[in-house]
Amino acid sequence: MSTGILTIDLDAMAANWRALDAMSAGQTAAVVKADGYGLGAARVARALHRAGARHFFVAVAEEGAELRETLGREAQIYVFSGHMAGDTDMIGDLDLVPMINSIDQMIRHVEALPDHPFGIQLDTGMNRLGMEPEEWEAVRDIALDLSPQLVMSHLACADDPDHPMNAQQLAAFRAMTEGLDCPRSLANTGGVLMGPDYHFELTRPGIGVYGGLPYADAAPVVTLDVPVIQCRDLAAGETVGYGNSFTAARDTRIATISAGYGDGLIRAMGPRLLALSGEAACPVAGRISMDLIGVDITDLDHDPKSLRLLGADQLIDDLADAAGTIGYEILTAMGARYVRRYIGG
Amino acid sequence: MSTGILTIDLDAMAANWRALDAMSAGQTAAVVKADGYGLGAARVARALHRAGARHFFVAVAEEGAELRETLGREAQIYVFSGHMAGDTDMIGDLDLVPMINSIDQMIRHVEALPDHPFGIQLDTGMNRLGMEPEEWEAVRDIALDLSPQLVMSHLACADDPDHPMNAQQLAAFRAMTEGLDCPRSLANTGGVLMGPDYHFELTRPGIGVYGGLPYADAAPVVTLDVPVIQCRDLAAGETVGYGNSFTAARDTRIATISAGYGDGLIRAMGPRLLALSGEAACPVAGRISMDLIGVDITDLDHDPKSLRLLGADQLIDDLADAAGTIGYEILTAMGARYVRRYIGG
Repeated sequence: MSTGILTIDLDAMAANWRALDAMSAGQTAAVVKADGYGLGAARVARALHRAGARHFFVAVAEEGAELRETLGREAQIYVFSGHMAGDTDMIGDLDLVPMINSIDQMIRHVEALPDHPFGIQLDTGMNRLGMEPEEWEAVRDIALDLSPQLVMSHLACADDPDHPMNAQQLAAFRAMTEGLDCPRSLANTGGVLMGPDYHFELTRPGIGVYGGLPYADAAPVVTLDVPVIQCRDLAAGETVGYGNSFTAARDTRIATISAGYGDGLIRAMGPRLLALSGEAACPVAGRISMDLIGVDITDLDHDPKSLRLLGADQLIDDLADAAGTIGYEILTAMGARYVRRYIGG
Repeated sequence: MSTGILTIDLDAMAANWRALDAMSAGQTAAVVKADGYGLGAARVARALHRAGARHFFVAVAEEGAELRETLGREAQIYVFSGHMAGDTDMIGDLDLVPMINSIDQMIRHVEALPDHPFGIQLDTGMNRLGMEPEEWEAVRDIALDLSPQLVMSHLACADDPDHPMNAQQLAAFRAMTEGLDCPRSLANTGGVLMGPDYHFELTRPGIGVYGGLPYADAAPVVTLDVPVIQCRDLAAGETVGYGNSFTAARDTRIATISAGYGDGLIRAMGPRLLALSGEAACPVAGRISMDLIGVDITDLDHDPKSLRLLGADQLIDDLADAAGTIGYEILTAMGARYVRRYIGG
């Protein structure tokens, strides 16, 4: 057995969701797009459903269709990409709620599924998804007559609470939704943390549930242990890996572990990634290759059977720093080759 | 329908394998680890088997087990990680050939499966997998008495044919395998291109089969088309995406497409990624987010229904340059959310 073992603590995840739910002024959804941020949408969604979540967000209708099979009828499933050409059967048959992003989508939805629930996504300045103020003005009365399930927008800078964009988007969202009597939603995880002004009737945490920043108090959710294939001694001056990118500065012992960028350990992490044996942190030696990583274990007093790349002592955001990215990408990059073990839920 | 469509040209892949086979002095294997470099090991391996490949390499025994189900009995399947604890049943029952990396693995193999085929992996300077010269010296006679199927090593710098490491590894491999009468293998794709000195009895191309450098003459294998969710006009000065990272320098039209780093489009590509509409190349606007990318389509004369991110005009190595990585990682990062369509095979 030489694949890495990715352990996903569904109890920690449920605790994170409950904590974010307790902070939220209204109801709290869960965002489970991109296969539950790489951790397995079905297991994640069932665990969060047991924790009390009844509103789930996915990116595309295909994800909603799979989620409906998992959750049965007792959950609302919202689709951020709205009602795309070809989505009608999935939306209709599986009772998905498309978040309508444009007048084109509005027309498609009303013509294809005139009595089917929908939500509205508004653009408040991110210019990514949702209706512009002028567009919304043009269809607002028609849309409201059809009783949308939810009106939402998305924050561009909520991971940075001091960014002036947050207040601008809040003001724009208020202006666009004033007087509405349907539920509203603006806050992602960062929005939840910015306080009740941002919460409205439904919050939509994603990354915080999975243990990532900006929710600094989140319980870690993932642990990744990778088996050692073999250990070897190098004389000072010998090199390791592709392009000879590591040169031993002293007599060195190298462990080769069985994971690499083919498992989603982003190649750019390079030697900034640490491999942990108990509390001892061992630096990576040489380039991360597709299936293998060399680790300098010279300072350990034994040859480890496995090394830990993710856990309480090295979080997804530490790996993100090493790769020059964000914790979200560390999660969604997690590869299919790992054995996934679920705790609790 | 709002997922990207990844089209995999199995005929192009088979043509690449045949061309590398024609260059090889001896027989030619195919490396199909990491789910066939992200393209689907089962489909890839069946197509290459039909093209004539009978030797396949995987990283771990679990991959070998799946491949055996796909290929049936008429193929040799070699496992680079060798014989790990827990692998014995898979290796024995499914007729896998572990590439033994160390004396520990040799003992494990001979004790658990005394009459079962195996190969030997030698370290010729990469210090990643395989026996060191002293280790090999110690077990060589015992190992040769047991008739290994293959003796191999791996090149650290073959993507750079002028690197002096190549000749050093070749000399080391020759010295360690002189007089052996079992088949030998040293060359990956780069090794095939460096000519017959590196070929021995079996070559092992991987990336070249999938259309990547260093095989510059490879036929492109993958095409990626991503649907447009909506298009919008921005006034000069408006911003797009997380962190407001794009500011419109002029009145601008933005298309939001339905893919992101959650699909393996590495976030570091950022605005260096191009989205193609026919021959027109449109720059990405703002950060790549998990499920969405903004594209500046101001210079197009129409709103496209989809944009192409990979194809003959933008290769995996172009995306790799944009991300500061290598084509191999672009392939293995390909996400599960795409619809995969196979041509030919």
